[in-house]
Amino acid sequence: MRQQIAEILDRKVTQNIIMGVILFNAVILGLETSDAVMARAGGLIKALDIACLTIFVIEIAAKIYARRLAFFKSGWGLFDVVIVGISLLPFGQGIAVLRALRIFRLLRVISVVPSLRRVVEAFIKALPGMASVFFLTAIIFYIGAVMATKLYGDTFPDWFGTLGGSLYSLFQIMTLESWSMGIVRPVMEVHPNSWLFFIPFILVTAFAVMNLVVGLIVNSMQDAHAAEELAETDAYREDITARLDRIERALER
Amino acid sequence: MRQQIAEILDRKVTQNIIMGVILFNAVILGLETSDAVMARAGGLIKALDIACLTIFVIEIAAKIYARRLAFFKSGWGLFDVVIVGISLLPFGQGIAVLRALRIFRLLRVISVVPSLRRVVEAFIKALPGMASVFFLTAIIFYIGAVMATKLYGDTFPDWFGTLGGSLYSLFQIMTLESWSMGIVRPVMEVHPNSWLFFIPFILVTAFAVMNLVVGLIVNSMQDAHAAEELAETDAYREDITARLDRIERALER
Amino acid sequence: MRQQIAEILDRKVTQNIIMGVILFNAVILGLETSDAVMARAGGLIKALDIACLTIFVIEIAAKIYARRLAFFKSGWGLFDVVIVGISLLPFGQGIAVLRALRIFRLLRVISVVPSLRRVVEAFIKALPGMASVFFLTAIIFYIGAVMATKLYGDTFPDWFGTLGGSLYSLFQIMTLESWSMGIVRPVMEVHPNSWLFFIPFILVTAFAVMNLVVGLIVNSMQDAHAAEELAETDAYREDITARLDRIERALER
Amino acid sequence: MRQQIAEILDRKVTQNIIMGVILFNAVILGLETSDAVMARAGGLIKALDIACLTIFVIEIAAKIYARRLAFFKSGWGLFDVVIVGISLLPFGQGIAVLRALRIFRLLRVISVVPSLRRVVEAFIKALPGMASVFFLTAIIFYIGAVMATKLYGDTFPDWFGTLGGSLYSLFQIMTLESWSMGIVRPVMEVHPNSWLFFIPFILVTAFAVMNLVVGLIVNSMQDAHAAEELAETDAYREDITARLDRIERALER
Repeated sequence: MRQQIAEILDRKVTQNIIMGVILFNAVILGLETSDAVMARAGGLIKALDIACLTIFVIEIAAKIYARRLAFFKSGWGLFDVVIVGISLLPFGQGIAVLRALRIFRLLRVISVVPSLRRVVEAFIKALPGMASVFFLTAIIFYIGAVMATKLYGDTFPDWFGTLGGSLYSLFQIMTLESWSMGIVRPVMEVHPNSWLFFIPFILVTAFAVMNLVVGLIVNSMQDAHAAEELAETDAYREDITARLDRIERALER
Repeated sequence: MRQQIAEILDRKVTQNIIMGVILFNAVILGLETSDAVMARAGGLIKALDIACLTIFVIEIAAKIYARRLAFFKSGWGLFDVVIVGISLLPFGQGIAVLRALRIFRLLRVISVVPSLRRVVEAFIKALPGMASVFFLTAIIFYIGAVMATKLYGDTFPDWFGTLGGSLYSLFQIMTLESWSMGIVRPVMEVHPNSWLFFIPFILVTAFAVMNLVVGLIVNSMQDAHAAEELAETDAYREDITARLDRIERALER
Repeated sequence: MRQQIAEILDRKVTQNIIMGVILFNAVILGLETSDAVMARAGGLIKALDIACLTIFVIEIAAKIYARRLAFFKSGWGLFDVVIVGISLLPFGQGIAVLRALRIFRLLRVISVVPSLRRVVEAFIKALPGMASVFFLTAIIFYIGAVMATKLYGDTFPDWFGTLGGSLYSLFQIMTLESWSMGIVRPVMEVHPNSWLFFIPFILVTAFAVMNLVVGLIVNSMQDAHAAEELAETDAYREDITARLDRIERALER
Repeated sequence: MRQQIAEILDRKVTQNIIMGVILFNAVILGLETSDAVMARAGGLIKALDIACLTIFVIEIAAKIYARRLAFFKSGWGLFDVVIVGISLLPFGQGIAVLRALRIFRLLRVISVVPSLRRVVEAFIKALPGMASVFFLTAIIFYIGAVMATKLYGDTFPDWFGTLGGSLYSLFQIMTLESWSMGIVRPVMEVHPNSWLFFIPFILVTAFAVMNLVVGLIVNSMQDAHAAEELAETDAYREDITARLDRIERALER
């Protein structure tokens, strides 16, 4: 029984059906955003959404039954449970945010399609290598936010009134969006020397971002390089050394 | 007869004349945008445009006659037929868009100049490798658009009223254009926690774009590296292995 | 006595305590930005800040006593002294900027955590290699600022009235923030040909920035490549040459 | 006599003096932008500027006398003549642009400092490799400008009224400055489908720019790689092949 279910779940057909249900559900949730469609066929849309959800619950229950703890081992199993679980939380019409989260089910496409899974796994693998640059950026942001709140919080409370507000404004400045015309020029009319704070902040965070990108490129290059070519080179070198060994021994005889 | 025409078409002179006609036609279509020029010499401009079009039609007809199906084989033949064909569609003065598409003829320069052809072919070749990142970005955009429409559609109908409108606004946010001052700050005045949606969206899409760029760089590096150097290395290695083989055999005698 | 102190300072526990004090101090200085918190517990916050500062002063004094001149040798010692020293400068409530600089103490995390130290050291090492591009950018900016002040200073005194103002505006234009809608379009209404100045400026500085990024990537790649792989290759090559030498000598006998 | 002058010009001292005069002249021209300074010491500033110019003219005349045609051979000689020559053109107070160009003399620093010269020469060398991408971008811009003028010229004459105006607006859109809030959203209120023109334009030009950057990185990598390492590898390989040749010949005896 358990093996039979596992076999059915592993079939290409089953996987394609699940994939189809995920995409169909995404279209349904997309149609739900249209007031015109909901006015005409709201009942049908909701029924179809519940049908999709039911299929997902059955699928995941079957997977857990078939693979037991191995299901949660790869991380993607837990990912599926959490994403489908969000939709099962009890909520009324009120908690709009939780209802909006249902569209996260489309993310299940990632756990179903291997090539997408690899992109996400490569991203997660790259995270630890970027940890120190991230941490450094966090330190710079925190320092910047404390200073901005102290210096400009009283005169520009909308932008730098609280620590959180300053963090948001500094993130906006880092993305260079309206940093000068929108924020720094008005601030400079009250604090003429404030460019001494903002321009170094832009340069330092730009450098941090650049560092992240460069690190990512160098890592990817080395991974790509190492995987195939180095293995080949090592094999060749060992072969040559072994051959020369034999020749030397033959000569010594 | 067929071979004679093929020979004439392959001549450097013929190709240069066609190139000249393409560029001349581009200038003519550029002049057509000027009301002053059209008021003075509108008839001449239109006549010259029709003359250029006639030359293109004759050239392509001759090419099809000379090369038959081989003409369509490389993809660039079909490209030429479509681009010139647009101008032959029956339309009155009304369909301004179709008339504007005539300037696409300038794209024929790409099919004529080999170095431009190579750039475009390299781009098309790179596309499949970027497919999974593109697909992932599409998923993120669709999820983002459904959520934004659900959450902010009622309060900000201009930006997030429909699924299409949300997709456009999220594309604008991804390019970082006025994302904060123009969109997120106003939205945050009504929904104070909306930065929890927008800032992760910016970070995730920025990562996706970065991933595309890094992938492109790494692929280009490997292609450039592989083409020349690896062939040379392989030849050298095979030579060394063969020589050592002979030496070993000589010693065994 | 001196050795004992040195030993205590090198212990993992001591370093973790200092790390804890740095982070605790950062939280304290963050809370100081909140008017609500200061109204309720301002005295406590100030006392805790002074306590943290006292710990830092004792720590650094102990380090100087234990290591003497060796403390200043690595640069990070001087860094710690300057950062803590800022807080000891005599100032009243008035000099808000100096008080705001106290949060720079959080930067001490960098000198304590080795992985952060490495990122910053890599950055400092990369600086000399970027010197000529930086110098070139400075020349372009100075030339641009003098020209902009001469040409547009009288008509747009807010943006190009002084050399300093022009440098700031050109920096804004280089970051592409509101360059066209905010600055160049208004300027072009008075000086219709001013795009001949601004667009080349954008292209040239964009090239300089690109050059910096490319240089950084190429350098990082080579460093990463050289460090491990080249050493291995050199060892292998020397081994092969030595073996062939022995074989040749054996054959000559 | 000729050789004596050549020797004086090649001396380190002479070069440092010229360098000093260039920088001093840059400061003088910077001070000229300040109305306050000119009101007080306008005569002195002008006299010093003429003195610097005289030194440059004498220097270049001496160089031409000493090296004759060889002076113009490297391109940097012509560069110096043109830059200094601009200041000698006859003009009244009226032609402000020509007077503003005098600050270009600071560019002479590039021809004097070898490391700056190398950066600029590397840039000029990289240009031909980017020619096809540049040409492709030019084609895309021209097509875009003709279409935009035809489609939106009548309704938005300020942005797309003329071919030149459209080229400028499309350049602004390519840099992503206010592309949506400033231009495309207003246009979409009149032409709802205009995003079908603008979004592909952004994607295509973004790809072209990315292509340029990637090409530059790959080229730089290969240059850096090829220069040192490949020469070493080739030398090693030739050595090994020669040794094996000798061994084989020795065995055949």
